[in-house]
Amino acid sequence: MANYPSKLFEQAVNEFAKLPGIGRKSAVRMVLHLLREDKNTAENLGDTIIKLRQNIRYCTECFNITEAECCEICSNPRRDKKQICVVEDIRDVLAVENTGQFLGVYHILGGIISPMDGIGPNDLNIEPLLARVENVGCTEVILALPATIEGDTTNFYLFKKLAASGVNITTIARGISFGDELEYADEVTLGRSILNRTPYQTNIPVR
Amino acid sequence: MANYPSKLFEQAVNEFAKLPGIGRKSAVRMVLHLLREDKNTAENLGDTIIKLRQNIRYCTECFNITEAECCEICSNPRRDKKQICVVEDIRDVLAVENTGQFLGVYHILGGIISPMDGIGPNDLNIEPLLARVENVGCTEVILALPATIEGDTTNFYLFKKLAASGVNITTIARGISFGDELEYADEVTLGRSILNRTPYQTNIPVR
Repeated sequence: MANYPSKLFEQAVNEFAKLPGIGRKSAVRMVLHLLREDKNTAENLGDTIIKLRQNIRYCTECFNITEAECCEICSNPRRDKKQICVVEDIRDVLAVENTGQFLGVYHILGGIISPMDGIGPNDLNIEPLLARVENVGCTEVILALPATIEGDTTNFYLFKKLAASGVNITTIARGISFGDELEYADEVTLGRSILNRTPYQTNIPVR
Repeated sequence: MANYPSKLFEQAVNEFAKLPGIGRKSAVRMVLHLLREDKNTAENLGDTIIKLRQNIRYCTECFNITEAECCEICSNPRRDKKQICVVEDIRDVLAVENTGQFLGVYHILGGIISPMDGIGPNDLNIEPLLARVENVGCTEVILALPATIEGDTTNFYLFKKLAASGVNITTIARGISFGDELEYADEVTLGRSILNRTPYQTNIPVR
């Protein structure tokens, strides 16, 4: 282990190295960067991190991040409260929001069922989802979970739990990604994309 | 640009994304990590960053990082003050210290001469080095700068400035790295390693 020139320097490197994807070399680089930049850069970063943890809470409806009681999406009167898109975490909300294709609301599970990692249904925000679907008179639950074994398991669990409520359950389309070549697609994806083929649509006017 | 769920969240992402090597996606990942971890993690990181910038100063001798007047290396009585190793930045000090092969002291230039980046000799700690070589009765200056055009330029500049003082000027050895194959070495490195060949040494006792 390197002999760092000061205890405080070492402590800062250790704290940075706890962040995901940051090794010791990157941590040293960051600390040196903060020392080189003017005083405000470090102070702003430090202050923001402390405030972040103090002021940010989770939306009581959808478990999105918010500084208020209810998040910006849930409190927006133009969003359809009866169409709920179920996602794994907040990054997925950002990703779907970026497409501009969805005008309903979200429900963040906070993870997916993964027995290997010791995550069961009770560790996720599933009970609140079931309650919400009942209370709000939900018309459609869109399952937008990862296309992995764990995602499929969670989809199936939610499907079984929601079936009794009679709500319409859909999943986002799986298939060949935009720009992908068939040759390099895996068998399962290609197989499913043939099974789930859709009527041909064109945006070019046919004369 | 993504529509972040809260101003504070967005601010934190922006601050993290200013760090070297951190894009917006990594910044989001870090912020979510801090929100998931317990309160202390975020507070410790924030506090350390603020303290870091307030308490760390530069050694008046060698410009290394220190919390005192003089860094740990310069204030160590067992280090040879007359043998000065000139390096680009603090990371190089850590790297050389890790080898355990050097018992002199360092001088950190804080960069290297790079006209492309607008860095000239006056932006670096060169004047203090010249003064130090005179004052301390220095016996050897070891140039340990990067093996790049900019490193060579800086070496040459320092050589010219130091020549008058009559001090012994050396550079760290360039050559084939440990474990490298000749086939893949570039021409300049291989050419120089032939020109600068050294007498064969062995650690295996010859019977």
